[in-house]
Amino acid sequence: MTLTRPDALLEQIVTATRILVHEGVMDVFGHVALRDPTDPGVFWLGRAGAPARLTAADLLPFDLDGAPLEATDAPLFSERFIHAAVFRADARAQASCHHHAAPLLPYCMGGRPLVALSQTGAWMGAEVPLWDSRKSFGDTNMLVTTMEQAADLAGALGPGRIVLLRGHGVLVTGTSAEDVVFRCIHACREAETLTTALSLGPVTPLSPGEIALAGTPAPAALRRGWDHWTARLPRETDTEGKGAQR
Amino acid sequence: MTLTRPDALLEQIVTATRILVHEGVMDVFGHVALRDPTDPGVFWLGRAGAPARLTAADLLPFDLDGAPLEATDAPLFSERFIHAAVFRADARAQASCHHHAAPLLPYCMGGRPLVALSQTGAWMGAEVPLWDSRKSFGDTNMLVTTMEQAADLAGALGPGRIVLLRGHGVLVTGTSAEDVVFRCIHACREAETLTTALSLGPVTPLSPGEIALAGTPAPAALRRGWDHWTARLPRETDTEGKGAQR
Amino acid sequence: MTLTRPDALLEQIVTATRILVHEGVMDVFGHVALRDPTDPGVFWLGRAGAPARLTAADLLPFDLDGAPLEATDAPLFSERFIHAAVFRADARAQASCHHHAAPLLPYCMGGRPLVALSQTGAWMGAEVPLWDSRKSFGDTNMLVTTMEQAADLAGALGPGRIVLLRGHGVLVTGTSAEDVVFRCIHACREAETLTTALSLGPVTPLSPGEIALAGTPAPAALRRGWDHWTARLPRETDTEGKGAQR
Amino acid sequence: MTLTRPDALLEQIVTATRILVHEGVMDVFGHVALRDPTDPGVFWLGRAGAPARLTAADLLPFDLDGAPLEATDAPLFSERFIHAAVFRADARAQASCHHHAAPLLPYCMGGRPLVALSQTGAWMGAEVPLWDSRKSFGDTNMLVTTMEQAADLAGALGPGRIVLLRGHGVLVTGTSAEDVVFRCIHACREAETLTTALSLGPVTPLSPGEIALAGTPAPAALRRGWDHWTARLPRETDTEGKGAQR
Repeated sequence: MTLTRPDALLEQIVTATRILVHEGVMDVFGHVALRDPTDPGVFWLGRAGAPARLTAADLLPFDLDGAPLEATDAPLFSERFIHAAVFRADARAQASCHHHAAPLLPYCMGGRPLVALSQTGAWMGAEVPLWDSRKSFGDTNMLVTTMEQAADLAGALGPGRIVLLRGHGVLVTGTSAEDVVFRCIHACREAETLTTALSLGPVTPLSPGEIALAGTPAPAALRRGWDHWTARLPRETDTEGKGAQR
Repeated sequence: MTLTRPDALLEQIVTATRILVHEGVMDVFGHVALRDPTDPGVFWLGRAGAPARLTAADLLPFDLDGAPLEATDAPLFSERFIHAAVFRADARAQASCHHHAAPLLPYCMGGRPLVALSQTGAWMGAEVPLWDSRKSFGDTNMLVTTMEQAADLAGALGPGRIVLLRGHGVLVTGTSAEDVVFRCIHACREAETLTTALSLGPVTPLSPGEIALAGTPAPAALRRGWDHWTARLPRETDTEGKGAQR
Repeated sequence: MTLTRPDALLEQIVTATRILVHEGVMDVFGHVALRDPTDPGVFWLGRAGAPARLTAADLLPFDLDGAPLEATDAPLFSERFIHAAVFRADARAQASCHHHAAPLLPYCMGGRPLVALSQTGAWMGAEVPLWDSRKSFGDTNMLVTTMEQAADLAGALGPGRIVLLRGHGVLVTGTSAEDVVFRCIHACREAETLTTALSLGPVTPLSPGEIALAGTPAPAALRRGWDHWTARLPRETDTEGKGAQR
Repeated sequence: MTLTRPDALLEQIVTATRILVHEGVMDVFGHVALRDPTDPGVFWLGRAGAPARLTAADLLPFDLDGAPLEATDAPLFSERFIHAAVFRADARAQASCHHHAAPLLPYCMGGRPLVALSQTGAWMGAEVPLWDSRKSFGDTNMLVTTMEQAADLAGALGPGRIVLLRGHGVLVTGTSAEDVVFRCIHACREAETLTTALSLGPVTPLSPGEIALAGTPAPAALRRGWDHWTARLPRETDTEGKGAQR
């Protein structure tokens, strides 16, 4: 089977990944997936590799069981099932990102829930769910490596756009590359604000009415974020060369 | 109506914005406005867009109701009313900046007031006011999108130069571009110092006499700040290209 | 005695050092050593010097008593004995790094142990040992400058891969350059996560079963890390020039 | 009176300043002074200006009353008296730096003393003195602008190498440019470590014996620091241009 490669979409994955690395969200082990624009049963994701070296040529199509739709001998991300389960569970989701951003990891340790405090964090809702793999699966290697685990995680995500993985990381979904990048970055900013605010005294969370009114980022805001973060990227000729240092 | 474009002033807005982005004060959603040097009923502000891409050509004149003074089909900042209300309420204000700097956001959550601790923070006064939109307007989308809201906010600012917006961000005013940039950056530094100092033990705030004596930044200090921060900006040919990556 | 210089290995030391400086792990005083690929009784380490200026030409062979195996009048690291003792005590260790990374230093002060919280920190085990030079050696200048001290430290390391030095710094070992770099960076990330998580509330550590299952980084993970961090390095022609500013 | 300009010394002031700005120690208002190598009654300091724009041509000679020794219409630092008083009070001091580094400012607020915890901070001694201008001078503008104030501050410094100024900043002295840069940077690192360590639990400070044994940085350590930090500086052709953006 040979799929038409949706080139513009693939460039979006590459740019989204570069933004998330440059803005300090994504480390060695994160990945961004986008659903195919013409076939909702297909998503695109890189072969297993370092985010800082991702190119469009590394992207492969997968079905909603996480199986590659092209013959390949490339190594695959063992956690690709996360994206498969998300795209299967939520028809609105067009984008999915799994990462381990430093500001969010402390909220994956069970000490206190992540709550929405500010205008740009309202989309997270009154409390971000925390998924604990141990509840359904007991001791694991802390990765999500089967469809069964991924489906359980997608269930914990529910109708929201972000879920925390105990002792592991974060899953964020969105309606586009712009949307998922916006949510990834602003979830980090919100967590940073909350962490410091909690050190100062009791915080005033957003009211349910405020969350309802502020809870959907405007398309213009998403576009502005993408414009801002791409403007901040190093030029291709700068230090983020993808093969020169290999 | 066609206004003469005050080119030097417009370059100041662009440079101020670049400084604030580069020094980590301004994120995706901030903006700087300057009052027209010849007509106090006019201020200049960018069309809605990413701070990292702002050019002088993006700047438009507005009246003190927040209405554009040139026919334009450009998207406008929904929060332009903040600047209109500030310039209307305070004849001394020549510059206004709305931002969401990370060190200040935690003080927007109600847990503890922001107080002046140091020589370069004395201008903030004994306690920075915190404006809560919910008091006068109930649940909102947490943005300031009408003259009525903006006038209420300007009232909370009072005779000072900084006011915090609950769950949202910051408003800083000044007598010039240099002045507002200085205050934006040093408010962040003061907040960082306070946050850490509070973790160590009870802090000794400035005395009322010290605040009175240290409370007005000297013109030479403002100039030195501008000189310092412009020297630190990437060259135009460097990574802050404004259109190359779009 | 003249040893064949293992050029590929020496380049690995240089690259590992550049990565650790660039990723904020290594400051002025750290160093990386690798065991010789053909003679397990030999390791390679730089002459005493600044990590940011290290080149392959600076690397010298040492025996497992910390004595240089080539006649040299170069100044030597007074703490080279650390690596000698590690390579002597643990036949599996092929790489050793001593550093003073900011996120880990606070755990060298005795207030609370460093524990594994997350997937990428599981290799550190349930609790990282803290070696206190004062126990066996009383007051010292806080450096490890004899084989006797270094052997005592290697004993505290035990079968693990990381040990903290009270009031001083960190020792990390690994099975390769890739492995030791991975562990150095992820130990920092884990410490940062723990520090913030502890400020939020009681943390949920990894269970013994999780530590057992997640405790060995996969070779593909090590390679991905190296790929990622080398892609992020400034080009040689960029700001990390090694002699231009001298 | 015309003094021979000690060109190598003047370049040291420029380089020291560039290092301190680049490593995050010095902000807009800091300055470095060095004593003249041939006349101990003379020191060199920049005309008032932004650290990021300092060149050797900006440096002027001063006597130990803080008076310029060349006719000049350049603006002068109002706090030049600090250096005059230091060089007058302590014949060993060849270098002096006043700054407001973020990690140290919280310890200027009276909540808790700064203490030595680690090998590279031992030179600070068991407790860093905190000078409060209010004790001798009542309410001021929080600057040190007279010889009388500066002499009082130098008295608080005593035989040590660092003193904190309440609500203001830091004074560090040294025996050379290398020495003062080393102490400025490592005081910041020590403060960061202490701040985080205190959040974890009760810290174990260095013992008096350890402080005595580790308390003098070795000349090789000072040289290594200078080599490391100069290697990290942007090239002259890079973004730290001193006039291009003015």
